[in-house]
Amino acid sequence: MAISIYSTLLPFPKLSVSSRKYHPFGGSNPSNLTIPTTSTVCTKALHSKTSDSLTSIITELEKESLNKDDQNKRQEDINTTHDERRLSDVWRELHGQDDWVGLLDPMDPLLRSELIRYGEMAQACYDAFDFDPFSKYCGSCRFVHRSFFPSLGMAHHGYYVSRYLFATSNINLPNFFKKSRWPKVWSKNANWIGYVAVSDDETTARLGRRDISIAWRGTVTRLEWIVDLMDFLKPISGNKIPCPDPTVKVESGFLDLYTDKDETCRYSTFSAREQILTEIKRLVEKYSGEELSITITGHSLGSALAILSAYDITETGLNVTADGQVVPVSVLSFAGPRVGNVRFKERLESLGVKVLRVVNVHDVVPKSPGLFFNEHVAPRLMKLAEGLPWSYSHVGVQLELDHKNSPFLKQTSDPVCAHNLEAHLHLLDGYHGKGHRFVLASGRDPALVNKASDFLKDHYLVPPYWRQDENKGMVRSKDGRWIQPERPKLDDHPEDTHHHLKQLGLASDH
Amino acid sequence: MAISIYSTLLPFPKLSVSSRKYHPFGGSNPSNLTIPTTSTVCTKALHSKTSDSLTSIITELEKESLNKDDQNKRQEDINTTHDERRLSDVWRELHGQDDWVGLLDPMDPLLRSELIRYGEMAQACYDAFDFDPFSKYCGSCRFVHRSFFPSLGMAHHGYYVSRYLFATSNINLPNFFKKSRWPKVWSKNANWIGYVAVSDDETTARLGRRDISIAWRGTVTRLEWIVDLMDFLKPISGNKIPCPDPTVKVESGFLDLYTDKDETCRYSTFSAREQILTEIKRLVEKYSGEELSITITGHSLGSALAILSAYDITETGLNVTADGQVVPVSVLSFAGPRVGNVRFKERLESLGVKVLRVVNVHDVVPKSPGLFFNEHVAPRLMKLAEGLPWSYSHVGVQLELDHKNSPFLKQTSDPVCAHNLEAHLHLLDGYHGKGHRFVLASGRDPALVNKASDFLKDHYLVPPYWRQDENKGMVRSKDGRWIQPERPKLDDHPEDTHHHLKQLGLASDH
Repeated sequence: MAISIYSTLLPFPKLSVSSRKYHPFGGSNPSNLTIPTTSTVCTKALHSKTSDSLTSIITELEKESLNKDDQNKRQEDINTTHDERRLSDVWRELHGQDDWVGLLDPMDPLLRSELIRYGEMAQACYDAFDFDPFSKYCGSCRFVHRSFFPSLGMAHHGYYVSRYLFATSNINLPNFFKKSRWPKVWSKNANWIGYVAVSDDETTARLGRRDISIAWRGTVTRLEWIVDLMDFLKPISGNKIPCPDPTVKVESGFLDLYTDKDETCRYSTFSAREQILTEIKRLVEKYSGEELSITITGHSLGSALAILSAYDITETGLNVTADGQVVPVSVLSFAGPRVGNVRFKERLESLGVKVLRVVNVHDVVPKSPGLFFNEHVAPRLMKLAEGLPWSYSHVGVQLELDHKNSPFLKQTSDPVCAHNLEAHLHLLDGYHGKGHRFVLASGRDPALVNKASDFLKDHYLVPPYWRQDENKGMVRSKDGRWIQPERPKLDDHPEDTHHHLKQLGLASDH
Repeated sequence: MAISIYSTLLPFPKLSVSSRKYHPFGGSNPSNLTIPTTSTVCTKALHSKTSDSLTSIITELEKESLNKDDQNKRQEDINTTHDERRLSDVWRELHGQDDWVGLLDPMDPLLRSELIRYGEMAQACYDAFDFDPFSKYCGSCRFVHRSFFPSLGMAHHGYYVSRYLFATSNINLPNFFKKSRWPKVWSKNANWIGYVAVSDDETTARLGRRDISIAWRGTVTRLEWIVDLMDFLKPISGNKIPCPDPTVKVESGFLDLYTDKDETCRYSTFSAREQILTEIKRLVEKYSGEELSITITGHSLGSALAILSAYDITETGLNVTADGQVVPVSVLSFAGPRVGNVRFKERLESLGVKVLRVVNVHDVVPKSPGLFFNEHVAPRLMKLAEGLPWSYSHVGVQLELDHKNSPFLKQTSDPVCAHNLEAHLHLLDGYHGKGHRFVLASGRDPALVNKASDFLKDHYLVPPYWRQDENKGMVRSKDGRWIQPERPKLDDHPEDTHHHLKQLGLASDH
């Protein structure tokens, strides 16, 4: 059996045999191409072919590799150790049961694939978000929840969206909340902020459990939200989230965003917190009797919300089924800031929440807040600083990537590039452990990096910021005018939200 | 019969009865709308409705106008004088037979419609051009010539493209020639620069003659080409264009662009001049016996090429058929610079070429070159300056528009906005004569102004620069990669070009 150089053990889009003959940019077939000595994609060889396009080089390398039976044999040997593991057998380990000990260096290939898969679910929050202030639907999701994954070409992930999440803020956050310029808008104060998705039956069988996944949207280009949101540490119980210890504190801005609501608007009738708790309750009840997992992902600010919601779900006990089964709760986050103090970290650990934070060492966001007083400070000093509002602590385990290791990326010091989520997924794909050479493991398309950035080296000829709608969503109406079409009724909250809220003892009086 | 407030006498897209009920932005229907006292679109009323969208206001106004039978009657009375004229009867007049005397102030409605129609053919050169340096086909037309008008939604114009035009330059013109970053490109030095189109039989019947139309592309955003191209006046005969008088001079940059070629590339084997002359010869022969017109249009630099080619066609005598019939040659141009000296102007007049130049008084391009010595200088002084390289003269008749008269447009002094072709077409639609109120005559969609500019006032809620391709033309291939698809073979030159060139005595020896 011929093994593609991109073959992985997980169901990522693979090159079909027919597509091997497809040469996307005819005429640019390099004849003097150096074939790497192993059949993995040697980025050094790619890099040296500056006169050709990314895609054609990759295709060419792959075509050649088909003729290299010896190499394929070797590749098969390399893969053998992993071939025998099935995701359904090892998912608890990959979700942090043992705090990822021994899985990060060298990088475990199955874990890498899982991280990319959840990262793509977080990326979907950006790809689907309507950023355009000239759009009447600015701040909403561009698709109805039923067509979410198919619209994004992600139907193969095998999940369905069970609920959209909205957030509002009682303080003005222009760098996070996008507002339409239209006088009458779908919502005055709310923004779409993510979704809850559930694995379908087929995927559930493959994953070894029914996976309830939450993806929180962050911010993309502007980093000003760090300043907007990071103010001071505040007891988590201050916003009516149950917590036995008043010294457990989190960043007030994140907490408010998680609990704020505005009952004058149907999208923010319920806080993000109320939405997530009722939905988790509903889903855990619905799938009681099945093996379950709760996996929360998010990029940037979304990472902070992922950690807060993981805390809340476990502290509230929603991850315990009626028959006493404890559903593992994991956070797989990207480019996230610190969220709370050491007590928060300790409480989260005692609740059994597992957090793996993927970061780029050149990104400033994971260094915020708490530049001076953080988990790196000597414990005695930290003890002293505990009462101070800036003694933040990261939670969980950190996986450090370095964008300077990728030969595909520009050597830029642009903080927005360093923070980009697609770049993190690209870096993950090439990461094999500290000091290991950068080699694309799955062949995940590097062109995705430039979806909303100008980070790929120019000679790969991928247009910067290429994700865009035709004519900014304007269409020509029957009468020849260019208009923004109406969308189907936007999803708001399920009718039984209040019912579940009441059962949780969280229903408001009015 | 109910008359739409947008009804015109010419075949522009009209609102169908069914579309009157279509309210493009549901929920934004203003209840306190002031209905103008006439049934024309009162822009003052539009303007005052800052809280609502452009399209819904227009739709609303129109809906209301249906109930105003009296007003409709008045509108019918107003239209009566024009109703009786048919384009097929008056086209010679509209094409400058009498130098447009009496047609510009007040503005003749049929002439206005015709100018907009040809302006749209010039605009098509921008809409179809591939500007993206990351595109392999940068500098080409995005469509094959057979699908040109249908691809642009202009099939209703009733023309077919008979030939694409390409230009090359022996000097470096980075602000005009767009180059792909790809290592192997469709053409090293040539750019698509326009097309020749011919009216189909049905349109020919309506127009009263077979119309051979030439549209030359100009530049869109950067105005640096003025500096790049405008150098000095040069005898037109210097580039082997026949001219009995060596004192007839034109701007050297325009002349070179018109006559340069590069035989190493199949797109620039023939100069723009050779392409246009052979095509006009072929078409005049093909349609001999029919009544014909040659109408040349262009915006900006395209206006200069329009004037040069009109001169060349008439000087070469290609507009005279075998049986001695003289085909009228007109130039309807937009935002064009001066092209030559007074002698050139006189020669053009003596050849019977009719030129109507539509300009915006705030645009700097029509003031170039020749800021000091031009047609406004006293004849005696001009006589003295004739030997100097900067004594330029405009040709033909100028129709002056003023973007400050349109309540739709921002009060900007941005020179790129003032030069925008779509803005000129919008201004034409509202122009009724000097001192007349700005009233949209056909209801031509003002949203078009923002196609490639940020010129419409923000409260009309039309996104700026909205003309764009989905994902910058990237598509997802079968193997899941994002690629730029291959295009069908690009059109180059018809095989009989050399044959016609030989007949014209212009074939090169090798």
